Amino acid sequence: MKTQVVIIGGGPSGLLLSQLLHRRGIESIVLERKTKDYVLGRIRAGVLETGLVQLMEQAGCATRMHAEGFIHSGTQISYGTDIFRIDFAAHTGSNVMVYGQTEVTRDLYAAREQAGGAIEFDAQDVAIHDAKSDRPYVSYRQGGRPHRIDCDFIAGCDGFHGISRQSIPLDVRREYEKIYPFGWLGILSETPPVNHELIYSASDRGFALCSMRNEKLSRYYIQCSLSDKPEDWTDAAFWQELIRRIPESFAANLVTGPSIEKSIAPLRSFVTEPMQWGRLFLCGDAAHIVPPTGAKGLNTAASDVHYLFSGLTEFYETGARAGIDAYSGKALARVWKAERFSWWFSSLMHRYPDQSDFDRKIQTAELEYLRNSAAAQKVMAENYVGLPY
Amino acid sequence: MKTQVVIIGGGPSGLLLSQLLHRRGIESIVLERKTKDYVLGRIRAGVLETGLVQLMEQAGCATRMHAEGFIHSGTQISYGTDIFRIDFAAHTGSNVMVYGQTEVTRDLYAAREQAGGAIEFDAQDVAIHDAKSDRPYVSYRQGGRPHRIDCDFIAGCDGFHGISRQSIPLDVRREYEKIYPFGWLGILSETPPVNHELIYSASDRGFALCSMRNEKLSRYYIQCSLSDKPEDWTDAAFWQELIRRIPESFAANLVTGPSIEKSIAPLRSFVTEPMQWGRLFLCGDAAHIVPPTGAKGLNTAASDVHYLFSGLTEFYETGARAGIDAYSGKALARVWKAERFSWWFSSLMHRYPDQSDFDRKIQTAELEYLRNSAAAQKVMAENYVGLPY
Repeated sequence: MKTQVVIIGGGPSGLLLSQLLHRRGIESIVLERKTKDYVLGRIRAGVLETGLVQLMEQAGCATRMHAEGFIHSGTQISYGTDIFRIDFAAHTGSNVMVYGQTEVTRDLYAAREQAGGAIEFDAQDVAIHDAKSDRPYVSYRQGGRPHRIDCDFIAGCDGFHGISRQSIPLDVRREYEKIYPFGWLGILSETPPVNHELIYSASDRGFALCSMRNEKLSRYYIQCSLSDKPEDWTDAAFWQELIRRIPESFAANLVTGPSIEKSIAPLRSFVTEPMQWGRLFLCGDAAHIVPPTGAKGLNTAASDVHYLFSGLTEFYETGARAGIDAYSGKALARVWKAERFSWWFSSLMHRYPDQSDFDRKIQTAELEYLRNSAAAQKVMAENYVGLPY
Repeated sequence: MKTQVVIIGGGPSGLLLSQLLHRRGIESIVLERKTKDYVLGRIRAGVLETGLVQLMEQAGCATRMHAEGFIHSGTQISYGTDIFRIDFAAHTGSNVMVYGQTEVTRDLYAAREQAGGAIEFDAQDVAIHDAKSDRPYVSYRQGGRPHRIDCDFIAGCDGFHGISRQSIPLDVRREYEKIYPFGWLGILSETPPVNHELIYSASDRGFALCSMRNEKLSRYYIQCSLSDKPEDWTDAAFWQELIRRIPESFAANLVTGPSIEKSIAPLRSFVTEPMQWGRLFLCGDAAHIVPPTGAKGLNTAASDVHYLFSGLTEFYETGARAGIDAYSGKALARVWKAERFSWWFSSLMHRYPDQSDFDRKIQTAELEYLRNSAAAQKVMAENYVGLPY
């Protein structure tokens, strides 16, 4: 087989890139190791920056998102017994869109299928060849049979555990990592959200987040020990702990119910440099991970897709290589800003097992400063809605 | 003897409080363990917030400061090969005043002496008695002879090593501390400053600061190891290292010369709570220490003096205790904001011996964000010029 761009990974980044390229007449084939149902079964974040919303519009996939998504023009931050609001709209003129990553992926699949886009599921043993040459190709097995796709470029959108990053030799790659000493226990529950905006709570008992997917589907998280397992937590124990960590005024209105999903995620900051090796480009989790505080994961993947899409269209439409050659530098500049914000917001909101009394006081002082300074709120808001591409 | 307020410590906080009280007809006696020359020989910071400038005006001690001090409406921040400016005036409408702490102290002594204010030097073995009663008193020895001063209130302005804080029982006091794993090697040199504004430099070799006292007197600092001693550093070695840590454009214009003072200061964050115990009130270094990055030490002492002065005048003029009773809470709220800023600015600008590559990248990402975000610059500016009292 032959195509212009092989996209490894059929998650939202790979699908978005494929769909954007298609609309500019650039051909791609998406290789996905799992099935579509498996991909759609992954529960992920659901807060979209304006940049991603605009990419979805550009991809022609925004109709359902605009109909069913929720515009959030602010968020609640609580600490101790205090609560305050960060007004995104007032500080930045911008908002975020609450719309589940699963829904984004579903809409992108629908668009690719409608356009007859090539998506190869159950693609096993994917390998990247000759990425440093002008004639790279990708090999894989499907149903036991070997395949080969010759191409101009390869987009590695196959996540943290994928083969794309690992195809870049170790003497070229430099990796940066921070592991946080706690996890997030999350549940999904068919109950109305406790509040129409998200509540980030830095309680003395640990962090909690009240989030949502829609009016009937809530997503709640509590900071937990890395040694905890989801089965250690009954639904009742989860709700009880959540109630202790959020302001009483909200706790009083919390509607509880059975969880339909319950899982624990570790928190990690990770970046690999460079994000480009010859004709291989890394996008999203394949190149970087953020802790979920502030919901920058999918949004940072989207900014990668934006830079790569721009570079590739420039190349195919004008022959100029400037855009693709600058990909790694441009993508990383924005990645590190999102890494910084996610690290900062995580550091501010969680209890750390080894933190001193001084460290804890500094967290509280920063929350009080954020509560009282319009400038600090603007900093938070401009990062939360997403720095410009 | 008898007075209204005994002030322990003849540094700038104690003198400022004494002079402010005097101008409202409230009598005080200042006790200083050392001599006036000793106090004036201490080299300290020289960047004054507007709040302190206004207190000096209120104290009637601002004439020479306004004539000889320098208004700085911004500062330079450098990292790697980049340099940018934080414009205090544009972001806050305010400035800072460069005028040495030694000069502040000299002007306050002149005012106290002119007014015939009581300052007892060489006051040894100072002890605080019955601070929890309505009739506290202070005892001390001078020239071998015992003295006792009965008073209404006691202001503990005697610094980190003074007896005031230690007079508060341990079961009442709570202390918070952070020790930084490096020091500042500073020199004073009779050379023109390398730049008309301060330069804070986060170099790969460690932090450096180009500061000044006046047009002919420069103050430079470099981050050094805690095991270094001033005698390890010749003047030539100091200048050579400073040149390596500041942008080339400035290094090329650096005028070097013999140091007239050279010393190493450790960096520490420290706060004691509460700052009030009965009729004893702690001010300045007696209650809190900040690392010098951002020059908040004297300025935070000044905000304590402001709150205490307001409370005492309210008490003597109306009999109301609300102001003095609220002293600790009000002072600490602002202290913690200054502690947060000093910790943040120190954390941003120094190399840490144990920092990971990720930590270092986050520092750079934050500096780049600060360079490019007007909101982040405003946050920095409003803290640097001083949050409102």
